[in-house]
Amino acid sequence: MRAWVAECVGTALLVMAVVGSGIMGDRLSGGNVAIALLANSIATGASLMAVIVMCAPVSGAHFNPLVSLANAFQGGLSWLTAAGYVAAQLIGGFLGVAAGNLMFGEPAFAVSHHVRAGWPQGLSEGVATFGLLSVIVSCSRRQPTRVPFAVGAYITGAYWFTSSTSFANPAVTLARSMTNTFTGIRPLDVPGFLIAQAVGALVATLLWGWLTPPLSDPETP
Amino acid sequence: MRAWVAECVGTALLVMAVVGSGIMGDRLSGGNVAIALLANSIATGASLMAVIVMCAPVSGAHFNPLVSLANAFQGGLSWLTAAGYVAAQLIGGFLGVAAGNLMFGEPAFAVSHHVRAGWPQGLSEGVATFGLLSVIVSCSRRQPTRVPFAVGAYITGAYWFTSSTSFANPAVTLARSMTNTFTGIRPLDVPGFLIAQAVGALVATLLWGWLTPPLSDPETP
Amino acid sequence: MRAWVAECVGTALLVMAVVGSGIMGDRLSGGNVAIALLANSIATGASLMAVIVMCAPVSGAHFNPLVSLANAFQGGLSWLTAAGYVAAQLIGGFLGVAAGNLMFGEPAFAVSHHVRAGWPQGLSEGVATFGLLSVIVSCSRRQPTRVPFAVGAYITGAYWFTSSTSFANPAVTLARSMTNTFTGIRPLDVPGFLIAQAVGALVATLLWGWLTPPLSDPETP
Amino acid sequence: MRAWVAECVGTALLVMAVVGSGIMGDRLSGGNVAIALLANSIATGASLMAVIVMCAPVSGAHFNPLVSLANAFQGGLSWLTAAGYVAAQLIGGFLGVAAGNLMFGEPAFAVSHHVRAGWPQGLSEGVATFGLLSVIVSCSRRQPTRVPFAVGAYITGAYWFTSSTSFANPAVTLARSMTNTFTGIRPLDVPGFLIAQAVGALVATLLWGWLTPPLSDPETP
Repeated sequence: MRAWVAECVGTALLVMAVVGSGIMGDRLSGGNVAIALLANSIATGASLMAVIVMCAPVSGAHFNPLVSLANAFQGGLSWLTAAGYVAAQLIGGFLGVAAGNLMFGEPAFAVSHHVRAGWPQGLSEGVATFGLLSVIVSCSRRQPTRVPFAVGAYITGAYWFTSSTSFANPAVTLARSMTNTFTGIRPLDVPGFLIAQAVGALVATLLWGWLTPPLSDPETP
Repeated sequence: MRAWVAECVGTALLVMAVVGSGIMGDRLSGGNVAIALLANSIATGASLMAVIVMCAPVSGAHFNPLVSLANAFQGGLSWLTAAGYVAAQLIGGFLGVAAGNLMFGEPAFAVSHHVRAGWPQGLSEGVATFGLLSVIVSCSRRQPTRVPFAVGAYITGAYWFTSSTSFANPAVTLARSMTNTFTGIRPLDVPGFLIAQAVGALVATLLWGWLTPPLSDPETP
Repeated sequence: MRAWVAECVGTALLVMAVVGSGIMGDRLSGGNVAIALLANSIATGASLMAVIVMCAPVSGAHFNPLVSLANAFQGGLSWLTAAGYVAAQLIGGFLGVAAGNLMFGEPAFAVSHHVRAGWPQGLSEGVATFGLLSVIVSCSRRQPTRVPFAVGAYITGAYWFTSSTSFANPAVTLARSMTNTFTGIRPLDVPGFLIAQAVGALVATLLWGWLTPPLSDPETP
Repeated sequence: MRAWVAECVGTALLVMAVVGSGIMGDRLSGGNVAIALLANSIATGASLMAVIVMCAPVSGAHFNPLVSLANAFQGGLSWLTAAGYVAAQLIGGFLGVAAGNLMFGEPAFAVSHHVRAGWPQGLSEGVATFGLLSVIVSCSRRQPTRVPFAVGAYITGAYWFTSSTSFANPAVTLARSMTNTFTGIRPLDVPGFLIAQAVGALVATLLWGWLTPPLSDPETP
């Protein structure tokens, strides 16, 4: 129960950080999208590090259905618990987008018109999620205390090295369809993102399951 | 006594970093507010990490009346000691705003005319302080060595994901009413900020008191 | 075998991060090269930290032929294993540049026309590689857990303090000749970069071999 | 002997990072000083973290005569060894400014015409050096493994919260008088900076000597 609440609160804070910093960057940058995205990426990465540290001792700080499912697939979580995690993340995502919108005087929910389509963006989501799950699987198996730092740093970078700005998270993707601001995504484009994310996560989980087989005593630096 | 001096010095350095970097960013950015805020947020987060590391072994590095009161509420500090902390933080805040102003040739104290009003900003302060206290309560109970990193990262992000730029600290809020520069706040808007901050802090303290009950041996990574 | 796969995947992700974030920064910044390079340097440094953490437990996370050769020179790796590392890094580099190009709708491989010549850039590559190998040799001998943080921070800075933007890596240099975008390098200019990098790496390996002689028990902080 | 070489190399890399990233930021930013300073501050802070990690096991990574003198004052270093440190730092500073200039096609040494005068800048140097020495004395006494992180973060912030951009180091100040670029300082303004730095360092050493008295077993987190 505590774990589910922590997942919900943590995912809400994450989505709020993404959406809110996108609005702020967009409003202040006077149309210079590079500066808006720089603020958005730095704010997201930094907030994510803090929120992972905050929730890790309670729930493991997944905030991402693919992470919970990969965890269940590897036997770290029962499928029932994982289902609860996913539900908590989805609820948290929608609470977060509402909070992000409201803090800037936007309606709590507004369907996004932001087009994010084309195969380069699909490829980007696949690659971005492959990288994210690679970081998470490797770290959680070999260096669990490094997860907050590594994931936050990865996301800061991945905003820039993919043409989709790396959603890499189905709960965040669904929630972001409900803000008609800088970080939104048109509902029509959501399914393609989700499929690409699932493929990327699957490849990463299989590859890193082989590269980092379970140890009895993980080296904790 | 050492703890009170450390709280005063640390809060002064924090406020000085906020106010000084705001003036510098504002003067150099030629009216591009996004760049000014990016400099302000990065400088504040980085300075805060350093100052927390500096003062933590002496006083715990609260720098924030709500953190000291939450600590007393949880039994970590006597109410008398907490009152001394709060007084030291208030004095430090005013010393810091004077130092920040003087280093840029501004008068030591000048009433701010910077309007920060409206319910989105009030909501922002409540949410921002909820998040800050969540990071602090969880970390200090489970991973105390991570406080400097997590708090600095959180504040860097929170500047951007709230419309109020996340004051989240009554001592800092009061002090910032005395600089008529980029980071100032009109005295008229201070009470609303303080109330929202108190509510956010209370909710976080209760929630994370439940999510992370005290342990006898905290896991120190 | 696992180590070679990890080197290939890690180098691919690194080159992809460099090339992709360069394209994104260039496209969004509207011709302001400083903002493009700021995004490029922050994204590269952050991604590199994450990818080193990811691969370190499997292969040591070299991603750089000069690091593998220096390691073999110091007896940490057999020459045969080092040759496998170098081959994996070269393959990874070309996979990475293709992925970076494709994610932004560019052709997988395109010869670069980006001129990077003149003795200041040659000197820059020598100095940059000297610094990089100094960080790596010292850290891996005395504080191995700090490699990801120190290398990522070094590269973020080195983008700015050298006129060549610090390639400092032969596999990355060769791969970047195959993207006609912001981070490309004209094939004609590659040999000069490689020679300067080799000289810088050699000096660093000899100097830090003397400054940090092998210990039986490295101090792991 | 090893320690002196490490101090010389480390100070050279630090000054090179300051001067080089200043030139790069200035050239690319098209007159937007805020962006140039943002690049300069991020590059300096990140490079400094890496170079401290690199040299700390050999020499303690002072790179600053005031740090070495404060150390000797507290009995950590003999006065003779400290004198050698200071000489190595001064030599390193001038090597570094030459390398920074040459990598960008500037003359190795050129007298700066950059005016940095007025009491706000003097106050800034005093405050900046007070803060720097406070971080260093507290960390080295209580949490020595945190020095690289805390000092790098402090300097990133201090560039922005002082009107002088925080030289806070006599060796760096003298060396920067020999580059007629973004980060230079007119020789006429050097003595005022040195005096302010000395005062700030003295106050910090005395204050933190009292706040953090020596322990037999420092808590190493």
